[in-house]
Amino acid sequence: MGFLCLPSLHRFFSPHPLLCSSFYHPSEARFSLPKLHASLTAREKAAEADEPPPPRSPAAVDRKPLPLHESAVIPRSLDFNAWYLDVVAKAELADYGPVRGTMVIRPYGYAIWEAIQEYLNVKFKETGHSNMYFPQFIPYSFIEKEASHVEGFSPELAVVTIGGGKELEEKLVVRPTSETIVNHMFTQWIQSYRDLPLMVNQWANVTRWELRTKPFIRTLEFLWQEGHTAHASAEEAEREALQMIDVYKKFAYEQAAIPVIAGRKSRAETFAGASCTYTIEAMMGDRKALQAGTSHNLGQNFSRAFETQFTDENGQKQHVWQTSWAISTRFVGGIIMTHGDDTGLMLPPRLAPIQVIIVPIWKKGDEKNGVLDTAASVEEVLKSAEIKVKIDDSEQRTPGWKYNFWEMKGVPLRIEIGPRDVACGSVVVIRRDVLGKVGKEFGISMEPSVLITHVKSRLEDIQSSLLQRATHFRDSHIVDVSSYEELKEAISQGKWARGPWSASDADEQKVKEETGATIRCFPFDQPEGSKTCFMTGNPAGEVAIFARSY
Amino acid sequence: MGFLCLPSLHRFFSPHPLLCSSFYHPSEARFSLPKLHASLTAREKAAEADEPPPPRSPAAVDRKPLPLHESAVIPRSLDFNAWYLDVVAKAELADYGPVRGTMVIRPYGYAIWEAIQEYLNVKFKETGHSNMYFPQFIPYSFIEKEASHVEGFSPELAVVTIGGGKELEEKLVVRPTSETIVNHMFTQWIQSYRDLPLMVNQWANVTRWELRTKPFIRTLEFLWQEGHTAHASAEEAEREALQMIDVYKKFAYEQAAIPVIAGRKSRAETFAGASCTYTIEAMMGDRKALQAGTSHNLGQNFSRAFETQFTDENGQKQHVWQTSWAISTRFVGGIIMTHGDDTGLMLPPRLAPIQVIIVPIWKKGDEKNGVLDTAASVEEVLKSAEIKVKIDDSEQRTPGWKYNFWEMKGVPLRIEIGPRDVACGSVVVIRRDVLGKVGKEFGISMEPSVLITHVKSRLEDIQSSLLQRATHFRDSHIVDVSSYEELKEAISQGKWARGPWSASDADEQKVKEETGATIRCFPFDQPEGSKTCFMTGNPAGEVAIFARSY
Repeated sequence: MGFLCLPSLHRFFSPHPLLCSSFYHPSEARFSLPKLHASLTAREKAAEADEPPPPRSPAAVDRKPLPLHESAVIPRSLDFNAWYLDVVAKAELADYGPVRGTMVIRPYGYAIWEAIQEYLNVKFKETGHSNMYFPQFIPYSFIEKEASHVEGFSPELAVVTIGGGKELEEKLVVRPTSETIVNHMFTQWIQSYRDLPLMVNQWANVTRWELRTKPFIRTLEFLWQEGHTAHASAEEAEREALQMIDVYKKFAYEQAAIPVIAGRKSRAETFAGASCTYTIEAMMGDRKALQAGTSHNLGQNFSRAFETQFTDENGQKQHVWQTSWAISTRFVGGIIMTHGDDTGLMLPPRLAPIQVIIVPIWKKGDEKNGVLDTAASVEEVLKSAEIKVKIDDSEQRTPGWKYNFWEMKGVPLRIEIGPRDVACGSVVVIRRDVLGKVGKEFGISMEPSVLITHVKSRLEDIQSSLLQRATHFRDSHIVDVSSYEELKEAISQGKWARGPWSASDADEQKVKEETGATIRCFPFDQPEGSKTCFMTGNPAGEVAIFARSY
Repeated sequence: MGFLCLPSLHRFFSPHPLLCSSFYHPSEARFSLPKLHASLTAREKAAEADEPPPPRSPAAVDRKPLPLHESAVIPRSLDFNAWYLDVVAKAELADYGPVRGTMVIRPYGYAIWEAIQEYLNVKFKETGHSNMYFPQFIPYSFIEKEASHVEGFSPELAVVTIGGGKELEEKLVVRPTSETIVNHMFTQWIQSYRDLPLMVNQWANVTRWELRTKPFIRTLEFLWQEGHTAHASAEEAEREALQMIDVYKKFAYEQAAIPVIAGRKSRAETFAGASCTYTIEAMMGDRKALQAGTSHNLGQNFSRAFETQFTDENGQKQHVWQTSWAISTRFVGGIIMTHGDDTGLMLPPRLAPIQVIIVPIWKKGDEKNGVLDTAASVEEVLKSAEIKVKIDDSEQRTPGWKYNFWEMKGVPLRIEIGPRDVACGSVVVIRRDVLGKVGKEFGISMEPSVLITHVKSRLEDIQSSLLQRATHFRDSHIVDVSSYEELKEAISQGKWARGPWSASDADEQKVKEETGATIRCFPFDQPEGSKTCFMTGNPAGEVAIFARSY
């Protein structure tokens, strides 16, 4: 029994009805989705024709290794980008919107975003922030007030010029980020030091007119949270900026099983308008870096531009000290590219919308009720322990098809229940992260306390195993360099290079032009001892990490 | 000791710095916030000058009735609109954005919206819907595909014409609602009857270029959820549309304590593109109607325009049957205008971000620690029972100031704890909905189980009392009419008129022009027996409710 291609997903590869529509500028490339047409199997053809599927042999459940050409996704090693787009489409995470570069986040992809929101929202509140909402339309003149901000953002703006059928007198920017409108409002809410700190957050959509787009990673519109705070002192703002990058780092490690490296951005890579940007950098499966979250110490840059002032304890007017920090739907892309494999998506249990998929198996009609009843009671048991569980009891699909489908979707654990399992009072438990026989445990008792303990412990195993695997992958692809030659060598091998750096912005630019790598960060975690800049031979206070990036 | 005006809120009444900015079209009125300047009290002036507040007499805690001119909000009976804007500002619910007609939802207002989301999100999932996200930019041509849809929405559109510094070849509409883009995507996801029903929802911002705006009630950008479903039969779509209006109705009654009337819209008032619109209509404190939520049976109107088809069980191509349904931040305005009084906001406990405010009271320094410690332990006790509780232990404000402040914010219950209460092991519990001595209970034991039971039961009392009060108010302002004269009389008295109706759309238009009232709905709940249309004398199948509305 060969692999069943996932039916109906080949639609993703159909020429897009709007691709040639008049509003696509020819120079603006759409997501470069490969135009593959998965060939239909006999069973799929039957499904398309709305016939009942042909009968399957019982042995079909034991899948043979998949011939390469029948694989559901292009192998990761063959073409990482095509693999990524395949997973996004076939795991039903996202689809293309009708406007170039926009993305529809499908329910399964959105559920991952909801899990991210759920965790972070609690952490933000615990650290003293309140949610609120700022309008997305910003007067064009606001964007121009902070010099480096306008320089950074003006090429990326979407601009509303018509409202209610009339040409507007002042054009409106669709927010690319909200520092300007936030400061405009802060001036109205902050008078005295007693109004500080002011610490808010919003979950919102933002728009940046990107030319090269990729689902989740870089889209014209995306979802994010943006925190904005105002403080009475530089020290307090710095503490806040550091606190929030630490919240992100813990989230990445503990929830997403992504061993990010936290650190400070170089001047060249600092957010447009910030004094200092902190970042978490993640190594993707192709060893490119992904900036997965940032926290900015804005200093007084915006408060001076907008006159956001307070009266201090001595009755003196002062400009507030500010921070802003964000994580976006890009993080979902980071999860896919960190953990996914040739079988598809692989989700860390703590962020998985479905942690356990139950596949009931029966051959004869008289077995069906017993198997389904048992599956339902196993589902109830796991639900009672707050495990996110689902039964796939569809009769239109075979068990083998379901195995592939839910592995593609990255569900951490599968439970199989057949007539023999019902008789024995036990189930089979299969790990998504350990394919083949090694990941399969037979005869796990259905007795509620035994089953719950077993499933919870396996989910924890998977969670830590994913982190361990990703950490090992990361560490084996970071090279310590002590010369520019060594850096070039490392980058050309697709690795990250870490070395002492105290050279100029111009030198940094030269590295970028010659190798394609940028300084991802000066990591907080620094080696001991004195250092010599690998570029200039001068003393260097810190090591920097260089890599090609998304 | 008189009433302390809430400091810093007078800023809301300062002339807006951007009011005269070039992009405000003179014909487009901003929110008509009255230009009152609350006079500063001695204590406020001290606060502004950052001096310590002057000492207060202990007796200040027992407030005298407030002289009218010192009242925090304009009395509701004097000017309902000004009262509403006052409450929005002084309870810190929302503020004006820099762009005409936009609104900043402040943390306290947003927390009410979060409580609405939390409840509905669970209900939507229980009824089989998944959250997802559609892009907000819609090609202009999409809006034009469904004839009545474009007619309804084109005057209200915000249009992006510039992206990334270039003029766009096709203009993009910022979504006013998503039926068009949803159908575009549904055509790609729906092939067979097995893909149905498809039931999704999104929480999102939407933009409608409204000319007359009012915070929460009608803003240029607002937040909402929009559900979109596709079904294989007309009957199933109709059941879904009815199910969702019922979810809204239950929410309004049980959570918001708003006794809405559910029913069907007249043809003239049906959503642009729908076959039938169901609505919940709420009576505000000024007896105007507020359409608080709608559910549309879209029939095949959009599926025919977008060719959203499926292959049925007989292999025939059919257009899907659809629904859409929405509730928005407008509902927050409905809560304010249903329950608020001259003291400010009054929140139903189930949606209140803070259900209990604890005000510790001490005079001498040596009393302070005991009172604060006791307050903290009472807070812990209530928190352990999942009651939303907060202590206001600020030393810059007097207890009297705090009473006014938290009453203005509509917190359902206040607990006062002074030195004598600490000694007796009891607290004072005060209801927001019953002002004066009647609402005040002394000597409630701090013993955890007693206190929790008492507080929970009082919160339930308030919840049902608010609903009862609003129901009584509603019912005493609906008049049954059997002639047009009676209707005119009722409407001129600011009441709702209910009477049998089978007249024409032209007659409906005539009523609107002559009285300002529209058909709010044909209520589901209909009187028995045969009816005669009060306008034409012809037999009428149903009664309709007429009212002036927001």
